Amino acid sequence: MCQCSYQLQTVTAANIAAFTTVFCVTEPEEPNRHKRASMIIVPTNTPGCEIVRVVPTMDCEIRLTNVRVPKENLLGSRGEGFVIAQKKLGPGRIYHCMRWLGQAQRAFDLMCNRTLTRYAHGSLLSDKQMIQKFIADSATEIQSARLMTLEAARKIDRGEDARIDIAMIKVYGAKVLHDVIDRAIQVHGALGVTADTPLEKMYREARYARIYAGPDEVHTATIARRILRKYQQGDSWDPANF
Amino acid sequence: MCQCSYQLQTVTAANIAAFTTVFCVTEPEEPNRHKRASMIIVPTNTPGCEIVRVVPTMDCEIRLTNVRVPKENLLGSRGEGFVIAQKKLGPGRIYHCMRWLGQAQRAFDLMCNRTLTRYAHGSLLSDKQMIQKFIADSATEIQSARLMTLEAARKIDRGEDARIDIAMIKVYGAKVLHDVIDRAIQVHGALGVTADTPLEKMYREARYARIYAGPDEVHTATIARRILRKYQQGDSWDPANF
Amino acid sequence: MCQCSYQLQTVTAANIAAFTTVFCVTEPEEPNRHKRASMIIVPTNTPGCEIVRVVPTMDCEIRLTNVRVPKENLLGSRGEGFVIAQKKLGPGRIYHCMRWLGQAQRAFDLMCNRTLTRYAHGSLLSDKQMIQKFIADSATEIQSARLMTLEAARKIDRGEDARIDIAMIKVYGAKVLHDVIDRAIQVHGALGVTADTPLEKMYREARYARIYAGPDEVHTATIARRILRKYQQGDSWDPANF
Amino acid sequence: MCQCSYQLQTVTAANIAAFTTVFCVTEPEEPNRHKRASMIIVPTNTPGCEIVRVVPTMDCEIRLTNVRVPKENLLGSRGEGFVIAQKKLGPGRIYHCMRWLGQAQRAFDLMCNRTLTRYAHGSLLSDKQMIQKFIADSATEIQSARLMTLEAARKIDRGEDARIDIAMIKVYGAKVLHDVIDRAIQVHGALGVTADTPLEKMYREARYARIYAGPDEVHTATIARRILRKYQQGDSWDPANF
Repeated sequence: MCQCSYQLQTVTAANIAAFTTVFCVTEPEEPNRHKRASMIIVPTNTPGCEIVRVVPTMDCEIRLTNVRVPKENLLGSRGEGFVIAQKKLGPGRIYHCMRWLGQAQRAFDLMCNRTLTRYAHGSLLSDKQMIQKFIADSATEIQSARLMTLEAARKIDRGEDARIDIAMIKVYGAKVLHDVIDRAIQVHGALGVTADTPLEKMYREARYARIYAGPDEVHTATIARRILRKYQQGDSWDPANF
Repeated sequence: MCQCSYQLQTVTAANIAAFTTVFCVTEPEEPNRHKRASMIIVPTNTPGCEIVRVVPTMDCEIRLTNVRVPKENLLGSRGEGFVIAQKKLGPGRIYHCMRWLGQAQRAFDLMCNRTLTRYAHGSLLSDKQMIQKFIADSATEIQSARLMTLEAARKIDRGEDARIDIAMIKVYGAKVLHDVIDRAIQVHGALGVTADTPLEKMYREARYARIYAGPDEVHTATIARRILRKYQQGDSWDPANF
Repeated sequence: MCQCSYQLQTVTAANIAAFTTVFCVTEPEEPNRHKRASMIIVPTNTPGCEIVRVVPTMDCEIRLTNVRVPKENLLGSRGEGFVIAQKKLGPGRIYHCMRWLGQAQRAFDLMCNRTLTRYAHGSLLSDKQMIQKFIADSATEIQSARLMTLEAARKIDRGEDARIDIAMIKVYGAKVLHDVIDRAIQVHGALGVTADTPLEKMYREARYARIYAGPDEVHTATIARRILRKYQQGDSWDPANF
Repeated sequence: MCQCSYQLQTVTAANIAAFTTVFCVTEPEEPNRHKRASMIIVPTNTPGCEIVRVVPTMDCEIRLTNVRVPKENLLGSRGEGFVIAQKKLGPGRIYHCMRWLGQAQRAFDLMCNRTLTRYAHGSLLSDKQMIQKFIADSATEIQSARLMTLEAARKIDRGEDARIDIAMIKVYGAKVLHDVIDRAIQVHGALGVTADTPLEKMYREARYARIYAGPDEVHTATIARRILRKYQQGDSWDPANF
């Protein structure tokens, strides 16, 4: 058995989930701080596991008080929590990027179709240059985000180090997602911020993308440091092969 | 023989060139306006071909007065000038993008190496987050421009219609070129705007890139119109296959 | 008495309002299209006035069927609707800008205080340059939007033509509002997109600001046309006196 | 008499100047590092004062070897160099901003007039929305930079602390200068990057503005730190009164 207590963790959908995965320090004496945590499955109906409240727009706060679960709920070995998390987060970030591409493409389709039917101030929106720029910029951004996602996936498939590519597409993809949805809303006018189109929900959720799985600023600093290490060693960054 | 007169053409390097290529209307009666022009080789020492002046930072102005050249100087057939120009401009734009990638990578290397040696306000530039953001953003932009250039080239190689991809990378690549050089200059401080590094010249020439081979605004409108045509036909834009 | 029928107007808060103001064509034969509409007060409990549905995140759709109200519900004279609307919209846009400044300042305060208490990756957020840039950019934008709002108000007070200034601050102020809130959210991380801070609601409502009282694109074109008219007359634009 | 030697200082226009002002450490033992330097006038024909070379696009490198000048060439007192420099730099930065406003307005006039005469792709440039956006954005930026410059000057005139306002307008004004000139060039096409208009030279010199009198990044960090100090003291930043 293992036992743990926690104050105020936020967990996505904990109020409707059968179990949650707790990431907690089990080896506080371990000198290597990357080997101190373990990952443990905790059924949400375990005694001591309490949903404190549902946080509007997001997650649940849960509190764990002397929660005990069987040993076999441990994922991997003791102290492997950090390694498991990192293994999951890399591909996890790519999956986000793939989803975002689908969302951006959906918003793009809505935008293009809208411009071909909405007539205002003497012409269709599709005939207005400011709107044409929305479309050209969005297409360029979608294409570049798509190709960068594929490049990162290709490196993962070949067993190469894809950490810089993943961090780049995590930051860039989240920005593209927002910008395309934002323009699609603009061509819909007030309609775009009602729940009558999927854009309003997409817009709110796109904002989360720059925070979850690591905020932009952390990835940005990581990219720079990894690239600079190359130059410190007298080498240089090669976008095709790092 | 063919004969022509022109006022004030600007021609790159005409003052040091052995010949120039004149694009002129030879079939003024032709109803199809894309079949009116021809392309003719004119040696710069032909009588009537006069260098009016060298325009600072750019080209030469030349004046052609009753210039006569042999028939074999005609490139292709009469009226084919526009087609020849278009055939050349598509791949020509890709070549620009390839050169730009090389320039951007060169500026990027200069920037990274500079940040590792320049100490200011208590630390190396490489340790400052605003500079790390310069590096991460530049790397992301170079990677995306590189992948889009390859994608356009791949479509050309496969004989597919690459016009949207070429227009996108022409606009986007020119922006990336400028932005990376601009950041490299900033980390060099005053040194970056002297001729002691290649950056100052690269910066000036990067500005031309948004004008030559078609200004950004023309390509932007073209991209939008080509994409919108798909939606007008009940189809949609697929970045992988257009 | 006057009578009117309408399909599907969206009206803010019509479901809780005692009356709404209907802007409708009463003089269809009038050659001057700016003199065709009138503005009429319609109590929402008038027979024929029906709330069709509440549109999520926004307004109500109402339908008017043979609605009859007394003559004294007419605002101003017949055909004066457009003039009344324009008189209201100019100052109305300034009021928006004033509210936005308050919102932006509130988000700014939240951001600054958060950076002084949130410790991550080895230091307070306030010590990190990327975050310092958030603060400096936001302060600059708030200061500039504030001064432009005051300038427009000053011109209105002096009885000068403030239409360019109002259009500029409408577009610019809405952008500043969004950008400051967006950065405040980012320094709050996941907390910033929950309802635990006012930022999440501010973020959604800031998006409307680029649409209501005229979308950015309409104001942008208007500013340009008004300024260009000066140059067409051989004059030039003077930001201090137009 | 005082005597000094220096390696490789760069001095603007030293090759044509009658004298230069040397800022050098005269009190190396002084514990307060802001009281170690003095400011001394050095005629360029003083023995030991040597122009090493003219640096293309910028300044001269000079070398001082055992240069001796009379005591009355000392500006202020010994150790006052830093204070004198700071006293000069604050207003100096405002003067830059004033010059930049003039330059930006000049570029704006050139842009507007060009759009009214240049016909391309079926209409005047002034009728195209992408160009109208250039004009509206430029006007908005000029107006905001102008008002912020006036605000900083007003605070200086009233004897208030204007350091945040000066730093903000130094960074923002330099950006506005670049962006307006950049758009003016774009509407001029190839003509805009030749010396046939003043824009090409303005463009190059605008790039220096983000470096001289302190690079953007230093001012950005300073603004943030000064503002955050307010919040650390339980106060907040008031754009009207700081």
